[in-house]
Amino acid sequence: MKEKTAQGGVCAPRGFKAAGAACGLKASGDLDLCILAADERCAAAATFTSNAFHAAPVELTRERIAEDGMLQAVVVNSGNANAWTGERGIRDARSMADLTAEAIGSHPRDVAVSSTGIIGRYLEMEKIAGGISEAAGRLRTVGGGEAARAIMTTDTFPKEAAWEYGGFVVGGMAKGAGMIKPDMATMLAFVTTDAEVDPATLGRALRSAVDLSFNRITIDGCMSTNDMVLAMASGASGMRVGEEEMEKALHRVCSRLAHDIVEDGEGATKFIAVRLHEAASEAEARHAAMCVAESALVKTAFFGKDPNWGRIVQAVGQAVTTADPAKMRVKICGFTVAESGEAAEVDKAELEEAMARRNLDVDVFLGRGDAHIEVWTCDYSYDYVKINAEYHT
Amino acid sequence: MKEKTAQGGVCAPRGFKAAGAACGLKASGDLDLCILAADERCAAAATFTSNAFHAAPVELTRERIAEDGMLQAVVVNSGNANAWTGERGIRDARSMADLTAEAIGSHPRDVAVSSTGIIGRYLEMEKIAGGISEAAGRLRTVGGGEAARAIMTTDTFPKEAAWEYGGFVVGGMAKGAGMIKPDMATMLAFVTTDAEVDPATLGRALRSAVDLSFNRITIDGCMSTNDMVLAMASGASGMRVGEEEMEKALHRVCSRLAHDIVEDGEGATKFIAVRLHEAASEAEARHAAMCVAESALVKTAFFGKDPNWGRIVQAVGQAVTTADPAKMRVKICGFTVAESGEAAEVDKAELEEAMARRNLDVDVFLGRGDAHIEVWTCDYSYDYVKINAEYHT
Repeated sequence: MKEKTAQGGVCAPRGFKAAGAACGLKASGDLDLCILAADERCAAAATFTSNAFHAAPVELTRERIAEDGMLQAVVVNSGNANAWTGERGIRDARSMADLTAEAIGSHPRDVAVSSTGIIGRYLEMEKIAGGISEAAGRLRTVGGGEAARAIMTTDTFPKEAAWEYGGFVVGGMAKGAGMIKPDMATMLAFVTTDAEVDPATLGRALRSAVDLSFNRITIDGCMSTNDMVLAMASGASGMRVGEEEMEKALHRVCSRLAHDIVEDGEGATKFIAVRLHEAASEAEARHAAMCVAESALVKTAFFGKDPNWGRIVQAVGQAVTTADPAKMRVKICGFTVAESGEAAEVDKAELEEAMARRNLDVDVFLGRGDAHIEVWTCDYSYDYVKINAEYHT
Repeated sequence: MKEKTAQGGVCAPRGFKAAGAACGLKASGDLDLCILAADERCAAAATFTSNAFHAAPVELTRERIAEDGMLQAVVVNSGNANAWTGERGIRDARSMADLTAEAIGSHPRDVAVSSTGIIGRYLEMEKIAGGISEAAGRLRTVGGGEAARAIMTTDTFPKEAAWEYGGFVVGGMAKGAGMIKPDMATMLAFVTTDAEVDPATLGRALRSAVDLSFNRITIDGCMSTNDMVLAMASGASGMRVGEEEMEKALHRVCSRLAHDIVEDGEGATKFIAVRLHEAASEAEARHAAMCVAESALVKTAFFGKDPNWGRIVQAVGQAVTTADPAKMRVKICGFTVAESGEAAEVDKAELEEAMARRNLDVDVFLGRGDAHIEVWTCDYSYDYVKINAEYHT
């Protein structure tokens, strides 16, 4: 597959336009609503949070994609999650789709909805309506950057990616673990392509790509009520793409966006790649890697630039209760710090120098099999506590 | 059961002596080793960490209790966990028992060993030997307080409890989530009684009491390699006690110690009781309650005195993926903040006043059944990050 990076985010593939608007949901006056629209109805697929209390827009979008796997547009607001808002929340989400459909001239059933922000507050529908009207009037093929900014909450930079694969293009945007006002981490991502692909194939490729990217990152182990990854395929390239190729292409973009979400994790000063090797199964590898990546003790140690491998083995031992320390090895930034159930000799000055860098690696070898996985996380800093304690509902 | 509090901690029951020593494992010069000894061999039982990488003393003590359920003493050091220390760690733990047995005149197989502190370092056995000799020479029936101080790491106060139950006494001491130098949270507790009870009954009563107390608290979700709760029954009261009565008596003391561990959680400014009501099963109640209690977002919100119920329902929804928000109710400090899937009207000034207190209550009603549970946790503060990031290995 001949490939190179492209510009334009979700508008990099042919057949898509986007625009953002500042409708007043964010007190700062920043962009807080966007529309991403295809020129025609097109194949769509999505993955959603498995949180029991999925927000109203999650329910609506899930239904609409289930109908016939086709969408024309998605409208997204930040500043209010429209979660725990009961029947009124569902009505409001439906209104957002209706207003968008009317403004762009599509069928209401072909518009998906996504929201992120505070939980338990009704949407201010007058502001939303104004924003939809404004964004619909400004849809452009160069609007990807504006859309990426409109979905940000406490993100410090917009997250966009696009790759060209000799004939077709995949683009995407995402927002990461942040909150407009104190809420939960919410992850939203929107991926577009001009490849020709049917909804079922797109769905399988997307689930696989998400499993290999967004499902392998963690900021704080908290799963939002609003998480959603939505893909739309316009077919405008005229190039028919099979499942495997589609998956690889989606994975590339999703992986880049997932990386940026961790890079921009709340209060993060470190990007940490945790690799679990020689596990008995992939499930075991994933569980152990996530246990390390979500450990508050590991994350605070790395904030303190401390190669505290005791906390790493503690987290692994909590996940894999039958592991044998005598067969294990632990590396931090390439330095073997523990093996055969004991501390290893290590050049402390060199290791300290490595710990001072922004990108850190943890490699754990379990000695139980040949399954492996890599997951990404960030550290816990004073700013993580500050961001999540000082903003108030 | 006629009952009242008693003084003396682990030495409150008849038949036990204790003493502490400062043998130099702690740079501060504080007490760092203690011996708790019964006058005679006596019934013993213990529960241990399920972490795969249990420390050498955990392995040794488990073996010794399995032999015949009898012990005469336990020797405990703080400052070094003797974990991930390989064969040498096992030899060192056995030496600790041998030296203690020699000093108090018991059989080596009747001495249990427990350690807490840094992982991956060999014990300094000369210092340990000196401490054992000193402590053994000073064993007293009023030594409980000294022993409780000797097992502290970053604990800010010693944790002791004792109750008299018309005829027999139960006493205990514990150390909480803290680290001498950056390590993992380690929980140790030692409980004594002068009731007459056989090892098997003591074991069943202890497991049940631990399940209702220590297994219902969480500081940061990290399970140590060294956790141990050890009970010894001297029988010196001459009062034969059945399983149910023993369990209730042990529970009372374990519950008090568990409370104090959370009260003294690293950096804690709040004590939070999380109660899950109307769950479909006890397992569901426990899982959901722990999900709330371990949520970094809930814990930082409470540090910020913010009644952020959105984060509470997010955590519940992550645990109980089939719950129906329409049947639920959430209370913070007695105020209903959400019900029937929406925000509830609440007097914000009154709720804010309640959130400013040290003791906070969270009540979640799932509307699914009649199982319920109460677990305890504390908040995440700047000091939690400071304590765990700034101390270095």
